[in-house]
Amino acid sequence: MDQTKKIAVLGGGSWATAIVKMLCENLDEVGWYMRSDYAIEHIRRNEHNPSYLSSVEFDVKQLKLSSDINEIVGYADVCIFVIPSAFVYKELEALTVELKGKIIFSAIKGIVPETGLIVGEHFNEHYGIEFEDIGVITGPCHAEEVALERLSYLTIACADQEKADFLAERLSSDYINCKTSDDIIGTEYAAMLKNIYAIAAGIAHGLGYGDNFQSVLMSNSIREMKRFIKKVHKMKRNINDSAYLGDLLVTGYSVFSRNRLFGNMLGKGYTVRSAQLEMSMVAEGYYATLSAYKINQEKGARTPILNAVHSILYDNKNPKKVFKKLADKLD
Amino acid sequence: MDQTKKIAVLGGGSWATAIVKMLCENLDEVGWYMRSDYAIEHIRRNEHNPSYLSSVEFDVKQLKLSSDINEIVGYADVCIFVIPSAFVYKELEALTVELKGKIIFSAIKGIVPETGLIVGEHFNEHYGIEFEDIGVITGPCHAEEVALERLSYLTIACADQEKADFLAERLSSDYINCKTSDDIIGTEYAAMLKNIYAIAAGIAHGLGYGDNFQSVLMSNSIREMKRFIKKVHKMKRNINDSAYLGDLLVTGYSVFSRNRLFGNMLGKGYTVRSAQLEMSMVAEGYYATLSAYKINQEKGARTPILNAVHSILYDNKNPKKVFKKLADKLD
Repeated sequence: MDQTKKIAVLGGGSWATAIVKMLCENLDEVGWYMRSDYAIEHIRRNEHNPSYLSSVEFDVKQLKLSSDINEIVGYADVCIFVIPSAFVYKELEALTVELKGKIIFSAIKGIVPETGLIVGEHFNEHYGIEFEDIGVITGPCHAEEVALERLSYLTIACADQEKADFLAERLSSDYINCKTSDDIIGTEYAAMLKNIYAIAAGIAHGLGYGDNFQSVLMSNSIREMKRFIKKVHKMKRNINDSAYLGDLLVTGYSVFSRNRLFGNMLGKGYTVRSAQLEMSMVAEGYYATLSAYKINQEKGARTPILNAVHSILYDNKNPKKVFKKLADKLD
Repeated sequence: MDQTKKIAVLGGGSWATAIVKMLCENLDEVGWYMRSDYAIEHIRRNEHNPSYLSSVEFDVKQLKLSSDINEIVGYADVCIFVIPSAFVYKELEALTVELKGKIIFSAIKGIVPETGLIVGEHFNEHYGIEFEDIGVITGPCHAEEVALERLSYLTIACADQEKADFLAERLSSDYINCKTSDDIIGTEYAAMLKNIYAIAAGIAHGLGYGDNFQSVLMSNSIREMKRFIKKVHKMKRNINDSAYLGDLLVTGYSVFSRNRLFGNMLGKGYTVRSAQLEMSMVAEGYYATLSAYKINQEKGARTPILNAVHSILYDNKNPKKVFKKLADKLD
């Protein structure tokens, strides 16, 4: 594999900013697309992202910045997409440059709402990218801790080991340890499902359940995740690896998780709509819940936690009653 | 099995107090041994334990209290031992009443330092109790949340299903869900090992590692626990069940855990001795680390986390250096 391939990050949020930072530790130049011309101008002048991880200083000479997605995709051999799943469909509509032939990595946690597909599948089905050319970057990793250069671990999944190694080398540094995996489907589903379980953790907290219950909920969540992913894509995997269990824990136990916060508001009595208005955003897990629920109606894994969250989010059921019933199904 | 068997709790700490409370939800009379005559007198007069979970009110008519261990063991058909592992050997020396023929449950999390055995093995080897008559009560369960009647889950393990069921029924209530298991060895080792991993979590925190690292550490801990327990007692078990993973999480993520606090002090630069003096107690995990390390020298499971904690606690190694090396072994 050509070791001089150019890499670009597409997205302007905190996780995108963290990934650019990681790449800048190793590369002379990193392509970076973000929608906001204001943010780009701010980075050029002040050497940091105005809105996300603003403590991270960039050497602007290393950055090839543009608000034109076609310019950056055209520049790059390897495109890392870090656009929130709710916007990825729309952003990709602007593409006129060919994606095919490039290596696509997704660091998007969730499902493309318009198609109900995880991001890898979306690139495969809608852009004809071979699965060999699609990879996933997954945590457990809060972007905020990357900004602080606190030791973090990533899993780089790609069916093609060489491509996984290529990116892993470029993301690794003093404070980033990378591991590779060939389970792109499983790691992507795990990254999506964990947001649903984080909503569940939040609901439980909002309802007044304590730490004893939370640990049981997480223990049941990882078992449910294993059953779900096995139905979707059966292969040998250790569900307790960091990419699955670690990612679940860093989100489920995080007080900063937007999914957990969303759930917490529901547990405290907010309606779904008012919680979303209050947060002025829609938590990824909201879409993930609907998609996962639909997928599972075909697959038929036993998923009491997913079902409980779904009934609260989409059938307007009472969280207190739903969790009382759910509690009897946990063990 | 005779459903009228008398039950007694031996121990006066918070977990013992919580278990007495659970039993009082179902039984007319509960035997309760504790060393302190002062505490007994206080409970008789004020209807609560002066030192632990003092918000829990007891109906004294339900309690058969005594500071004479022989009186309570003599009274009971089922003895639940909840004495800290560091004192259990000494307390049991006072026994003149025969234990054999009784059903023994252990809610002690740790190893008997004098013999290096988990409690079940200690009762078996030193008191000739059949394994059929030995059981384990395990969490994930903070006693403090039982006091608040927050929904909690226990696992009652006994090789004899009937005995596990018997106790499970008597501990279950509105706020306690019990599950049974036949894995007494595995659940006991899990309860012991999790304290070592909680020390590791504390050390990491004290050294300034963040949540990303903690989730990787916990993900590696459960895999290490699985390898260790498999070597000690191979049987079919799901390590992600609440009794193993749940118990690890409730301790590893708890800011109240004394083991985690102990580790945290070490990470912050206290010596082992000064941390113990500061805490005016020895965390269970301190003994557990030595015992588990010794056991594993025979068994040969790959245990980088246990080894790291052991080298800090017993070989006076520098936590920062040890964790830097450990971090490279995690994934």
